[in-house]
Amino acid sequence: MTQLEIAREGSISPEVRAVAQLERVEPELVREGLAAGTIVLPANRNRLCPRPAAIGPGLRIKVNANVGASSADPGMEGVLARTRAALDAGADAVMDLSTAGDLDAIRRAVLSESPVSVGTVPIYQAAIEAATAGSGVASMSEEALFDVIARHAADGVDFITVHCGVTRETSALALNGERLTGVVSRGGAFTICWMQANERENPLYARFDDLLDICRQHDVTLSLGDGLRPGCLADGSDSAQLAETAVLGQLVLRAREAGVQAMVEGPGHLPLDHVAPNVVLQKRLCHGAPFYVLGPLVTDIAPGYDHISGAIGGALAGMAGADFLCYLTPAEHLGLPSVEDVRDGVIASRIAAHAADVVRLGVGARQWDDDMARARGNLDWPEQFRLAIDPKRARARHRPGGNRETTCSMCGPYCVFALLGKPAAAHK
Amino acid sequence: MTQLEIAREGSISPEVRAVAQLERVEPELVREGLAAGTIVLPANRNRLCPRPAAIGPGLRIKVNANVGASSADPGMEGVLARTRAALDAGADAVMDLSTAGDLDAIRRAVLSESPVSVGTVPIYQAAIEAATAGSGVASMSEEALFDVIARHAADGVDFITVHCGVTRETSALALNGERLTGVVSRGGAFTICWMQANERENPLYARFDDLLDICRQHDVTLSLGDGLRPGCLADGSDSAQLAETAVLGQLVLRAREAGVQAMVEGPGHLPLDHVAPNVVLQKRLCHGAPFYVLGPLVTDIAPGYDHISGAIGGALAGMAGADFLCYLTPAEHLGLPSVEDVRDGVIASRIAAHAADVVRLGVGARQWDDDMARARGNLDWPEQFRLAIDPKRARARHRPGGNRETTCSMCGPYCVFALLGKPAAAHK
Repeated sequence: MTQLEIAREGSISPEVRAVAQLERVEPELVREGLAAGTIVLPANRNRLCPRPAAIGPGLRIKVNANVGASSADPGMEGVLARTRAALDAGADAVMDLSTAGDLDAIRRAVLSESPVSVGTVPIYQAAIEAATAGSGVASMSEEALFDVIARHAADGVDFITVHCGVTRETSALALNGERLTGVVSRGGAFTICWMQANERENPLYARFDDLLDICRQHDVTLSLGDGLRPGCLADGSDSAQLAETAVLGQLVLRAREAGVQAMVEGPGHLPLDHVAPNVVLQKRLCHGAPFYVLGPLVTDIAPGYDHISGAIGGALAGMAGADFLCYLTPAEHLGLPSVEDVRDGVIASRIAAHAADVVRLGVGARQWDDDMARARGNLDWPEQFRLAIDPKRARARHRPGGNRETTCSMCGPYCVFALLGKPAAAHK
Repeated sequence: MTQLEIAREGSISPEVRAVAQLERVEPELVREGLAAGTIVLPANRNRLCPRPAAIGPGLRIKVNANVGASSADPGMEGVLARTRAALDAGADAVMDLSTAGDLDAIRRAVLSESPVSVGTVPIYQAAIEAATAGSGVASMSEEALFDVIARHAADGVDFITVHCGVTRETSALALNGERLTGVVSRGGAFTICWMQANERENPLYARFDDLLDICRQHDVTLSLGDGLRPGCLADGSDSAQLAETAVLGQLVLRAREAGVQAMVEGPGHLPLDHVAPNVVLQKRLCHGAPFYVLGPLVTDIAPGYDHISGAIGGALAGMAGADFLCYLTPAEHLGLPSVEDVRDGVIASRIAAHAADVVRLGVGARQWDDDMARARGNLDWPEQFRLAIDPKRARARHRPGGNRETTCSMCGPYCVFALLGKPAAAHK
């Protein structure tokens, strides 16, 4: 049985119990969410994932880091270095998005390195194997696509992104010339190339039941991808995006009926004032399925700093109800991220997630901030470093004051806690 | 006459005309805002500031960078390096917050280096000169404080932060033991030390009319400081903060009556869901005066990354109506910022400001994003670099794809714009 089926039966699985303990919530909250489909727990039954991410309302917002190889760096070493950097920075999940190298070997290595939920986008491998064979992406056979999905599922992949909502009808809306950047999802673009050349419907939509069979068998969680997500502010919340979301909402119901866990992916690029409305609308159209957002980026003008644009959008989305943030790194729109970029990206998304958790989960989530505030008031530097979201960075950047060891170099002797004394409440 | 008085008379000053041209708005919009006190234009009449910042609704959100020396680095060189870094990164204003070194010389050098509006916090100099003389901050005389203010005004300082709302009554609320971090404003702490030792009211409140006389004479804009701002999420929006804001609102009216321009400073640290309500409340209590926010930081747990916490809060505040963002650097809460920290801080705040401007100013502000989107769709890298908020960084971080010069190393040959072709709309 899948986690959804176990929960629906009224039982608390060991995974639910472990997650509930980590999050300090009642196991029943997780079970109810799973049964209703508002929470997912991506934990492939072929794999003993030590720390699967439970994603949905009432739980901490989770952060995913994309790792993986590209033709510019197809080796295993780079992928594993990025994976370790993501995990070290506190990612709750990683996705292997490799488009070059030994795809099977890389996926298995990422799975074996990662104690957290692991996701993939199987169409990458299927399309690239077809392209590499010499006849282009469009020569991919439907069987090859489903074979790759089955292979990923058998290997233990916990969640897969499938762009089932990129249909002939919805994709036409994205390609009618109105959009500034057309289609910017790689999986969406592969699917459209294939549909155009073969004049057939997207097999992941047309044969959705076959997909559900594979997922149910291994308890692979569907991450219903937004292949038509806007690629710039100007394209945000348009008819193509909304039409795709509506299709995904129908597929969420079919997945639940089949006992398969499903979450839904969302933008992308959005003006700041579209972020909260998008979350509200997605939750409505997709029947409360967990929402997995990429950013969203709230401006297009900041290459080199897209982790910051993404953190702004992510915090807002999280406050409005998004449950899972896909990180952006400073390398977004410029190239494959370095190990440092991966670290910066994970931390930026975790800041956004925590800022939203303070609102979403209340005083319990703020305890961390309150502990830091007390450590600041006490000028207790070791404790400030211990509590910092990135203790190494905080320690490395600390510059002690010139004439008083206890203050920092910003104010030196004129530190407020030196002038007025340590706040009484900091001693509590 | 001050810019406020000129505007109230119905005249368009040369400064208003220049600002309106830069911002592509009607001069009358700026004049009306100035006359009503909802816009300020900090431009000391003793100084020909080439690019003064106009701050208020209908205008681009402005970004301030704090520069200045501290006891750990009291030299002129560091201050000027940080000032140049801030200007190079696009700061709309700088504040000299020096607390060490030759304070008069540093201020004059910052003024002479900066083609933008320059601010100071005169009580720093007055308090530190008293402390340096050997008898502590509390030995500062009222005359010395007003002398320093007059000196700053005569030197051409465009705006000064004065913590006039830190009264014996309001500060008692911040020091009653309820706050985790008490008072975290340096100017607020100096004022409280002085009031406690001298058992007198804050001279900047008690003798507010004397302050107005100096400001009117030189057209120095008041930045009514929030000496009781919250220093952590737990202290956000408390009675001390609100009582001070209410006092500042009364002083805004007295400043306007005297023909003196005034804006109001705000937090600080706030939970994400307090940000917009704080802006609404400040605008109400302070009769629409421009709002100058420090961040706000939306979490306390991210030392080393506070430019990101601040950008999240700043974007939200800007969307809700804040007009002026004080930057945070990655060094906040850890030490004096390096030149790189200054750059990172300014860019992060500019990203937040622009994301909010897209909402605040509409399609005109989004043109920049749309141009970038077209350049992306066209795989036009030189144009993407040119349009980037930090062209140097974007160029340095670009990693071309392995086998196609036109794509980047993220997707290589599987770039969406290679797969599907360049979007038609990108050619427009």
